[in-house]
Amino acid sequence: ADGAALYTAKGCSACHGADAKTPIMPAYPKLAGQNAQYALNQMKDIKSGARNNGQTAAMKGIVMGISDEELQAIAEWLAAQ
Amino acid sequence: ADGAALYTAKGCSACHGADAKTPIMPAYPKLAGQNAQYALNQMKDIKSGARNNGQTAAMKGIVMGISDEELQAIAEWLAAQ
Repeated sequence: ADGAALYTAKGCSACHGADAKTPIMPAYPKLAGQNAQYALNQMKDIKSGARNNGQTAAMKGIVMGISDEELQAIAEWLAAQ
Repeated sequence: ADGAALYTAKGCSACHGADAKTPIMPAYPKLAGQNAQYALNQMKDIKSGARNNGQTAAMKGIVMGISDEELQAIAEWLAAQ
């Protein structure tokens, strides 16, 4: 899967910025350069509900529509930014 | 409060790296350059238990011993890295 294409197609860029480091709100994280394993774990935990603090409710709907393999591709693309 | 001094004195550097971007485990986040508001919210949520996913259990004991004002200073220091 193409992480860069998924990052945009699945709507991540809308909140975290096209470059993954200009989020539209100060309460949203910058993601560029983050550890892939950490980023993947957070997306999976938001998807499962194991993490539901802060602004994650807005994100849960989005990650529900993304497979774990696709989340892995997105996490690896983020780590490379 | 001096965010840089607190970051080291309170033990954050032990897991996240002295430069806040070389965590000792891939499942720990890089923090350097993160939005201060986001970082502060996560530390407060781990402290309150509103966020308790992944590796946060290891961190809860540490943030319990840090005041919200000190967490603010640490978050601002992180954003400036």
